[in-house]
Formats: sequence, C-alpha cells, structure tokens
Amino acid sequence: MPIITLTTDWNKNDYYIGAVKGAILNQYANAIIIDISHQIKPFNIFQAAFILKNCYTNYPAGTIHIIGVKSDYSAENQYMVVQADNQYFISTDNGIFSLLFDDLPVSKYIIDNHQSTTFPELHVFVRVACEIMNGAAIESFGKPSDRFVRRVPLYATIEESVIIGSIVHIDSYQNAITNITSELFEQVGKGRAFKIFVQSNGNVISKINKSYQETSPGELLAIFNSINLLEIAINEGNVAELLGLNTNSTVRIKFK
Amino acid sequence: MPIITLTTDWNKNDYYIGAVKGAILNQYANAIIIDISHQIKPFNIFQAAFILKNCYTNYPAGTIHIIGVKSDYSAENQYMVVQADNQYFISTDNGIFSLLFDDLPVSKYIIDNHQSTTFPELHVFVRVACEIMNGAAIESFGKPSDRFVRRVPLYATIEESVIIGSIVHIDSYQNAITNITSELFEQVGKGRAFKIFVQSNGNVISKINKSYQETSPGELLAIFNSINLLEIAINEGNVAELLGLNTNSTVRIKFK
Amino acid sequence: MPIITLTTDWNKNDYYIGAVKGAILNQYANAIIIDISHQIKPFNIFQAAFILKNCYTNYPAGTIHIIGVKSDYSAENQYMVVQADNQYFISTDNGIFSLLFDDLPVSKYIIDNHQSTTFPELHVFVRVACEIMNGAAIESFGKPSDRFVRRVPLYATIEESVIIGSIVHIDSYQNAITNITSELFEQVGKGRAFKIFVQSNGNVISKINKSYQETSPGELLAIFNSINLLEIAINEGNVAELLGLNTNSTVRIKFK
Repeated sequence: MPIITLTTDWNKNDYYIGAVKGAILNQYANAIIIDISHQIKPFNIFQAAFILKNCYTNYPAGTIHIIGVKSDYSAENQYMVVQADNQYFISTDNGIFSLLFDDLPVSKYIIDNHQSTTFPELHVFVRVACEIMNGAAIESFGKPSDRFVRRVPLYATIEESVIIGSIVHIDSYQNAITNITSELFEQVGKGRAFKIFVQSNGNVISKINKSYQETSPGELLAIFNSINLLEIAINEGNVAELLGLNTNSTVRIKFK
Repeated sequence: MPIITLTTDWNKNDYYIGAVKGAILNQYANAIIIDISHQIKPFNIFQAAFILKNCYTNYPAGTIHIIGVKSDYSAENQYMVVQADNQYFISTDNGIFSLLFDDLPVSKYIIDNHQSTTFPELHVFVRVACEIMNGAAIESFGKPSDRFVRRVPLYATIEESVIIGSIVHIDSYQNAITNITSELFEQVGKGRAFKIFVQSNGNVISKINKSYQETSPGELLAIFNSINLLEIAINEGNVAELLGLNTNSTVRIKFK
Repeated sequence: MPIITLTTDWNKNDYYIGAVKGAILNQYANAIIIDISHQIKPFNIFQAAFILKNCYTNYPAGTIHIIGVKSDYSAENQYMVVQADNQYFISTDNGIFSLLFDDLPVSKYIIDNHQSTTFPELHVFVRVACEIMNGAAIESFGKPSDRFVRRVPLYATIEESVIIGSIVHIDSYQNAITNITSELFEQVGKGRAFKIFVQSNGNVISKINKSYQETSPGELLAIFNSINLLEIAINEGNVAELLGLNTNSTVRIKFK
C-alpha cells in the first residue's frame, strides 16, 4: 500500500489537515497517510527541510511526501514534483528542494495544468500524489526543470584549527543541534584535544560523550547524535533555555 | 475500508485519544482512523462545527465522524446519530448538528440504550460507529428526532451599501476568516468600488487579492479563500496579533 | 493487521516521529501505527505510565506498545520487552514498567544485541517490534529478567475516618484527577456523610456527582470518572488554574 506523508505549518486546530486527508482517501482509499509534522513554524522552509531530510530515508521506495510550507504559487515559485532516492516530493519550488537535495541526483518536473488556489495542497498536490499512486510517471505532470530556486543552508566553516558552526535546530528536549558533522570534526581535529565554546567563552566542553548519562544531571555536554551532528545538551535539562540558545547561535571548536 | 474521523477538544497529552482508538480497533480491526483535530478549544462547538463543516465534504461516502466536544448527556442534550451528505455524524445534540447542517436534509436518530458515563465517546459513540461499519442502519439505534437543539451561527448583515460581517475563525497563520461569502460580496457590491474596514476605521483595504503575494510582505490584504470566505491577512505576517483581532471582531465593507 | 502504538515525549515539531514511522513501514508495510501521545512532559515516566495504563486495555490482543520516554540505556536501565495482558511493551527499564504493571503477572526479557545509540526507539525498539509482528517470541530477544527497576507511585493513605489522596493528573479540561478510587471511598466511607477538602479547608465539596451538569457552571464538584478515580472539576470551568492545583496537590476526605 502506498504511503503519503504530510509536512506542514498548519498546526492542528484548523480544517486543512482534515480536508487534505479526506481528499486523499476519496481518490485513493488504500493510501497510508503519515503525519511527519504539522508544527513547522509558519513559512520556515529551513525547519521543514531539516525535519524531512532527517527522516525520509527511513521510508520505503515509492513513498510520496507532500510539503505544505510557504506553498503559494508565483511565476518564481512554481509547483513541482521531484523524484529522489526512489521517493517522490511534491511542493512549491520556494527553495525547499535545494535545501532537501543539495547535490543529489534528482528528476524535477514543473506541474502544469493547475488551478489558481490559496490551498494548493488540497487542489493540486493531492491530485498529483494520487495519480502517482495510480502509476503516473512524473514526466506526465509538466515539463522538466533544470534548476531549483536556491536557498543556501548554513555550513560550518574552518579556520586553521578552529571549526565555527551554528545551531540549526532546537529539538523536543531543547537540545541544541549544530551543523558540525562527526566527519568534519575528525578531519580537522585528527584526534587532538579540543575545547568547545557554546555561544560565549563561559560555556566550555572538552570531551565528546557517548551517552547523555555519562555526565551528571544539570551539566553541559556534547554528543554526536543519531544523524551524526554535534549536539549540545544538558543531561535531563534544558540547554536552549538555560543558555539562551537559538537557531543561529554560534558553537566554536578549538583544537590544540 | 470504512473511515472514522475524530474531532475533539482533548488535546494530545491525555489518555482519551488512545483509549478511543484502541476500542475502535478492538471492535473493527480494519477501520481507518483519521484525526481531524484534537485541539478544539474546550467546549467550543462553534469552532468544532467550523472545522468539520469545511472538511467533511472531502471524505468518501460512508465516512463516520465522531465529535467529542461538550458531549455530556442530559435530558436536553441527547446522544444522536445523523446521516447527511451520505456520511454519518455521532455526537451529543448540544447545538453542534444545527451549526453543521443548518437547512440540509438529514436523518437524525436519538441513541437509546446507552449507559451512564462521563466518557460517552468511548462507551457509546465507538459502539455505534462500529455497528454502522458492520452494516447497522441508523434507524436501529433509537427513535427518530424531529428537531435539533439550535445554536445560531453569526451571519453577516446588510445595510444598503454596507456589509457588516464578523471574524469567525483565526487560522493556523493567524489569518482572520470572516463570515462574508464571495456570493454576498458580489450581490451587494455589483462590481462597485469599496472599502473594507477591519475592526476600526484605521485599517482599510480597497481591493481583493488573487494571491497573498500580490501585496508586499507586512501589508494588510483581503482575499476570498478556498472556502469562499473573505479572509483578512498580512503577507507573511500575523494579522490577528498585530491588529488585536479575535473571533467576533467586526469587518465592514462599504461600497461606493 | 498488527498494531504498534507510540507514547513519547517528542512533541510534534521534530523528525523523531517521522523517522520511527518510516522505519516501521519499511520493515512491516501492513503495520497500523497509532499515536497514543507525543506530548508527555520530557522524562516524565509517571505521566507516560498514567496515560498508557488507562488506555492500553482497550487494544486488541497482540498490540505492541513502544514507549519513548527517558529511554537512555545504562547498566542500570536496560532495554526490555514485556508481555502483559496479552500485549507487548518495549521500552527502557527506567521504572516505567513497575508503574505500568505493579503486581500484574508479566514476562520480561532484557533485549541484548543492541547497538550504542542516542535514538533507541529507531535503532532498537522498531526492530524488536517488527520481529514480534513477524512471529518472534520475546524469549528470543535476550535473557529473562527477574525484576523491574522500581518507581513507587503515590498511593492514597487512610487515617481512621480520613482518606488523604493526591492529584495525579491534570486532564485536557484542566480537571484534577486524584489517586482515590471508588473502591477505597466505599470501603472507608461505608455510606457515611463526608466532606472533601481540595488543597485547603476553603474548598469543600459534600456530594459526589453523577454528571458534570448536576452542578451549576462555575461551581466546584467531585465525580468518579470513567477510570473510577475521584476527579475534582468545575462545570465548564478550569479547576486547576482557578484553585492553583498541580499534580501532588492534596485532596482530603473526612467522613462523619
């Protein structure tokens, strides 16, 4: 049975979710509909991309992902269907695809034959998703596109023996996830001792944990998490609130 | 496979949702259960009706909607099952049905043979829903009813060349949705120029947008949305917070 | 079709839910996945146990419950799969099982052959759940355990003609649910008149309602709810906020 996921900024006190799910089931009664999140911050395509990017690879081939964040149509921002990693992604080309796929090989088609609407998820994306489930090829929806609208994610930078990264996500536990990968850390550090400065020079960490519980409750720690990004946390605590961290706060690693 | 939807004010940090879903699957293993919303404001049947009314028509024939908002039983407010638009609606007759169906032709039956309970969704509504899925006719649940408990929704009113409407819903983006339909606007306006006053005379709009993006970010705009209601918004902004709008705030349209 | 439920403290603005659901469907395409709650307060195993305990009995035999609250592995807190009441429960043995099952007969097995991970729900629990759906016996996951890590829930106490209880849960309507069962009330009270003191001597109730509506809107009331626990409420009001009640606030019943 084919799977459709939804990633939106609709919250859950509105009629949008119910309308889209009804329309899917009306066209394709056997669809399995999965809510990835409806709590993306309004218009925040960076957050939507972060969340979807870090979970879509768990889905089986053929899964269809509808993304309803900043989905207004314009001449610059067209409706698009993309095939990548054997899965399908339907949204408006507002930069989200460039954040999701970066340099991945993908097929991308502009959806034509759409109506004017303030609710493209219901009136355009559901139809495309159901036709794909019925076997339509993405070539059938419109003409191929040779580029995406580009939005550039923050990358960590390197200066000699220093990595300068940023916090890119505050998670459910108020842990702060950075854009520093374990690969970058190894490559620059080459096993040397280091100090991690979180936002200011006052918050210093000098080891990488294997588990949260290695450090006492209430103390600052750093760990590479399940998606291989450096995460700043406080064991059983709330690091974002306690240190006033936001997405974009700086994390510096200085190697000896 | 039959579909059951849930619309409640339970939030999602309680055991009510898990209990009801378990009881449905226990009686009818193939049911598809869809959450329309569990974030209706406590006891707010107007919000519940607005949301369900604007999404149920997307569902296939035979869908069963359980509504768990202000569902306490009393002699005045009896449990009821209603068939309308080829779908089924199970709730307490507290006014919600009159808000949902207004002048629509419907069949309505009072559910008898119910137990005394503080949790009618689990102990009464699930049983009725599963029996309908198993082929029971709604006539079998009790005696027909000839009326609903009436709650009157706010309607927009007309004074010569003025429409006086109200905001009836604040959506996920903090856009303000009024009870002014595009039909009423055309009928009164007959193509004349107009000014829309949002709450006070200080907030004026003199055109209807086709899309949010026609207006610059941060500016006030009006648009007929996907359910044909006049919506007041700020492109990429939060109109309800910025102008202090609530449900019941007034929107006046004065035609030249 | 086998059912997997999820009870976590992940909230819904993260990638954890989407990742786990994708991984389940990837391994077992016919699984029915039910969200019991993703809004457990971080690390609060008491709340997680209260919610799951009060809804799991509604599920059919064979249902598998994954609990993702305070699930970090340590030598003290091992991953465990438990069979109880013909259902399966997978979590970390952090005390949650002792709160869920108390003196119930259960089979409990420590899960071995697990990898080091900060995301055991994705990397360990999903695999175990899918193998159970494929027919694996829980004996196959590791060695039997003879005890749980113990956490002691609050019990109501008795002093002659007085029951001293606590509020253990604030529900969706801000009603306050105590740990005083109807059985304890009958056993101590033996039909005598009584006064219920909510937190202070200023808030007194001297009858047990059959329904919320027996008492006027705005007035304090007590009722035995659908899980047979004494609940303090205000008809159409918000008792927890108005009286400043929290979990652990005291409720005393004095019989004449």
